[in-house]
Amino acid sequence: MVETKPAEVSEKGDSKKGAKKEARKAEKEARKSERKVQETVDNASPEEDVSVGKYGNLGLIQSGSLSPSRSFTDVRSLNRNLAGKDVWIRARLHTVRARGKQCFMVLRQREFTVQALVNVSETISKAMVKFCSNISKESIVDLEGSVVDLGKKGVAGCTQGEIELLVSQVWVVSVAASQLPLQIEDASRPEKSDDAESLRIRVNQDTRLDNRILDLRTPANQAIFRLEAGVCRLFRDTLTVRGFVEIHTPKIISAASEGGANVFEVSYFKGSAYLAQSPQLYKQMAIAADFDKVFTVGAVFRAEDSNTHRHLTEFTGLDLEMAFHYHYHEVMLTIGDMFNAIFKGLRDEYAVEIAAVGNQFSVEPFTFLDPPLVLRYNEGRALLAEAGVEIGPEDDLSTPAEKLLGRLVKAKYDTDFYILDKYPLAVRPFYTMPDPENSLLSNSYDMFMRGEEVMSGAQRVHDPQLLTERAKHHGIDVSKIAAYIDSFKYGCSPHAGGGIGLERVVMLYLGLDNIRKTAMFPRDPKRLTP
Amino acid sequence: MVETKPAEVSEKGDSKKGAKKEARKAEKEARKSERKVQETVDNASPEEDVSVGKYGNLGLIQSGSLSPSRSFTDVRSLNRNLAGKDVWIRARLHTVRARGKQCFMVLRQREFTVQALVNVSETISKAMVKFCSNISKESIVDLEGSVVDLGKKGVAGCTQGEIELLVSQVWVVSVAASQLPLQIEDASRPEKSDDAESLRIRVNQDTRLDNRILDLRTPANQAIFRLEAGVCRLFRDTLTVRGFVEIHTPKIISAASEGGANVFEVSYFKGSAYLAQSPQLYKQMAIAADFDKVFTVGAVFRAEDSNTHRHLTEFTGLDLEMAFHYHYHEVMLTIGDMFNAIFKGLRDEYAVEIAAVGNQFSVEPFTFLDPPLVLRYNEGRALLAEAGVEIGPEDDLSTPAEKLLGRLVKAKYDTDFYILDKYPLAVRPFYTMPDPENSLLSNSYDMFMRGEEVMSGAQRVHDPQLLTERAKHHGIDVSKIAAYIDSFKYGCSPHAGGGIGLERVVMLYLGLDNIRKTAMFPRDPKRLTP
Repeated sequence: MVETKPAEVSEKGDSKKGAKKEARKAEKEARKSERKVQETVDNASPEEDVSVGKYGNLGLIQSGSLSPSRSFTDVRSLNRNLAGKDVWIRARLHTVRARGKQCFMVLRQREFTVQALVNVSETISKAMVKFCSNISKESIVDLEGSVVDLGKKGVAGCTQGEIELLVSQVWVVSVAASQLPLQIEDASRPEKSDDAESLRIRVNQDTRLDNRILDLRTPANQAIFRLEAGVCRLFRDTLTVRGFVEIHTPKIISAASEGGANVFEVSYFKGSAYLAQSPQLYKQMAIAADFDKVFTVGAVFRAEDSNTHRHLTEFTGLDLEMAFHYHYHEVMLTIGDMFNAIFKGLRDEYAVEIAAVGNQFSVEPFTFLDPPLVLRYNEGRALLAEAGVEIGPEDDLSTPAEKLLGRLVKAKYDTDFYILDKYPLAVRPFYTMPDPENSLLSNSYDMFMRGEEVMSGAQRVHDPQLLTERAKHHGIDVSKIAAYIDSFKYGCSPHAGGGIGLERVVMLYLGLDNIRKTAMFPRDPKRLTP
Repeated sequence: MVETKPAEVSEKGDSKKGAKKEARKAEKEARKSERKVQETVDNASPEEDVSVGKYGNLGLIQSGSLSPSRSFTDVRSLNRNLAGKDVWIRARLHTVRARGKQCFMVLRQREFTVQALVNVSETISKAMVKFCSNISKESIVDLEGSVVDLGKKGVAGCTQGEIELLVSQVWVVSVAASQLPLQIEDASRPEKSDDAESLRIRVNQDTRLDNRILDLRTPANQAIFRLEAGVCRLFRDTLTVRGFVEIHTPKIISAASEGGANVFEVSYFKGSAYLAQSPQLYKQMAIAADFDKVFTVGAVFRAEDSNTHRHLTEFTGLDLEMAFHYHYHEVMLTIGDMFNAIFKGLRDEYAVEIAAVGNQFSVEPFTFLDPPLVLRYNEGRALLAEAGVEIGPEDDLSTPAEKLLGRLVKAKYDTDFYILDKYPLAVRPFYTMPDPENSLLSNSYDMFMRGEEVMSGAQRVHDPQLLTERAKHHGIDVSKIAAYIDSFKYGCSPHAGGGIGLERVVMLYLGLDNIRKTAMFPRDPKRLTP
């Protein structure tokens, strides 16, 4: 039996008012490809078609009481051990090509692909082969077939290449519009500069982001965002085992805590408010409230008009703060160990994902030392000076200097991760604890991956009087940060912490060139959609 | 040797300009109590004071190169097995009381308290006892003492009551202002209505929230937010094991996706944008992009001017979305099982925290069935009708009706958690999948804890044509949601999901009466600070 879509859906068309032209066009195309499929089926009268009841449009899956219950096999688990078995898969039609009495389909499920063959036979009609060859790419199908062992030679270009499926049933679950704004094959093509493929068609970044739903279907993107979830999990699990407590800090705040620049304003009922540029004040308040060791994962907002490869206006912050007994290195080394736990976890648990990204982008494996390398800022300056780049003792590192230092450190120590400790006091925020023995320095550190900063942190001033003094020294109107200063007046443990940009960590771990590749739906000064 | 604060901190005072009066007053008080402590020490000349070098102000902990390295014992692990041992603890001074030649201190570390006795002796001077009795409450001290076994009778009112510490050293790490806006003892007092204590002083909610740093130090609050972290962890771990992928969805969006009411507007460079009222569109896009099963934990914003016990303008959403094969019950039951995994985890791993909350608030233990109870909406209506409350077949449940139904279900099935399935189509959003067999109903469900809704979910319409039709039926301008509808035009699996309010789950699990008790820094129409 060939089911059709329910009546309430099958007759439509005049969405004149309002609906965007684009949307109308796409809808029309979707209907067209559905009609095409349906006509193919209708043209074959039941008497002639030996395959009736074995193919067609499944109709809208609406959870009816007669819903089939069927066991599906994942594409990734299809292999030669299943030879001779009948399996059902639900997957996307990646490519389709008819050749005489045969139709070759490649089915894709996330990063995994398998070939299916529809072959005219006693049970498979010509009409069924024609139906299959007319299904639009990216449609989702339920397909039954028996697993055929193809031996070692197999099918080139399929991840499950040693087998194919000899098809017995094909049902379309969801039809894709026949015109796609980008082809998954194009979007998946290797971008290695030395590759012969590199002359072929590519998809530019704006087209990708404008059609992010399609772009995200590439094997590399499937892998990137699974790995990103892994970074978050490893961050939290490592800290939880060490006694950290997860907290949630407000994003809507009454005053721009960190100076007031680069902050988004929000209408708040009859007044106005701001979006938090970091959870720092709240992490520190949690320390003052005896939570001792805390972390938080959440959105962070920066109204910077920076259109670079590594800035976003909204990103995911992995923040932590920790009370210590006598020295902030207790915290700094805890953070360093936490990074190493993330790197080990990715290496050991995400090899498949790292390889999938490597198939599209040139990725050098990420190296790190255990325990991590700690250099003092002045040692970093000395390395740069040897290479002919002078940085003043109270100057910050420029981005090019950071990158050069990353290369120098890599050459000397063979590590893509290191910690730079004891920054000049002058280049750090007012709440940074000064070094007690050298008035030019501070108890602060940055951490780097492949020469780019992924974390900035420090011991914070936990004494209200010194904090007031430091704020005034920086020319900050103390009345505007009174609430912050007051946080420390009822006793507070010495503490340190830091903030990590999730998307940067993933970008740099994988050696990618743009942070928009590691934000699922990136936000920058020019992009607010999708 | 009695150390003092570094010179750069010791002389301050004229913060005339700008600094709030309040802040100045508090600072003055902090200085006053520091001076008081210092004078006590200074009055005792070294020749007379046998305890010199055993007590005083430690001075600002600034991570100097000569920082002591000392092993500290947690207050919670102090017990009779340590009798005779010398230990160092770092804790807050909870209460202090001098009696002749003795000073009794109660030290508090999170939920745990222990008594320490400073007793004039050959090694402990009168001056040291006086110093200790003058330390302001809530100051943080490093204290060395030997563990004394007090036997079964012990010290009433201390969690580690079977022992006390006989003090040998006391160093003040961080001084608290001597005037506290609320007393931790008052804020910790039991609120059980049948308690004799209930006539004594209480701290009202605004005072608590205005001074949240102090309020959060109570044993009940320490427990609430540790348990809240547990809910998040159990949510994520349960879903991760089942193959869900964590995603991060943008909070700044270009258009108000769900109708446009109750949305906060943000200035975005030269234009404007909105804060997302839910991650739903993005979760669904992740499904359309083949991520199959996703969850996200993050801030959700509602510009509702509701000043109730259970509404916040910003809360933490635990959201999930999942593709299914043929019936949305595959998803609904996955969510039900996930709730049960949370309830079991809390019961088994957070007994100490649940008891700590129970010491202050009357909490009936939370009951649940395994597997969870699923009722159809019409069954719920029938139960209400039996109790004399008629709800029309196309009407939603009012809050009082929900609460009554919760009591009826509890009486009949002995469960504080249940799922109500098959809501009337008329009361659900346009993107809810209609029931295929009864046009009045929909494939949607709510989940309840102690009679209040904690999750709302449904199968979503994944067909662009039906979605357009449903939107028009609801009078929605289709052009404004074209991007949403377009998400489904390139093939999309049938899917369902739901959104959970974290603070509500914790409030209702613990049987608390106000959601401001389970948001660390709550936001409502009238509160944006701290």
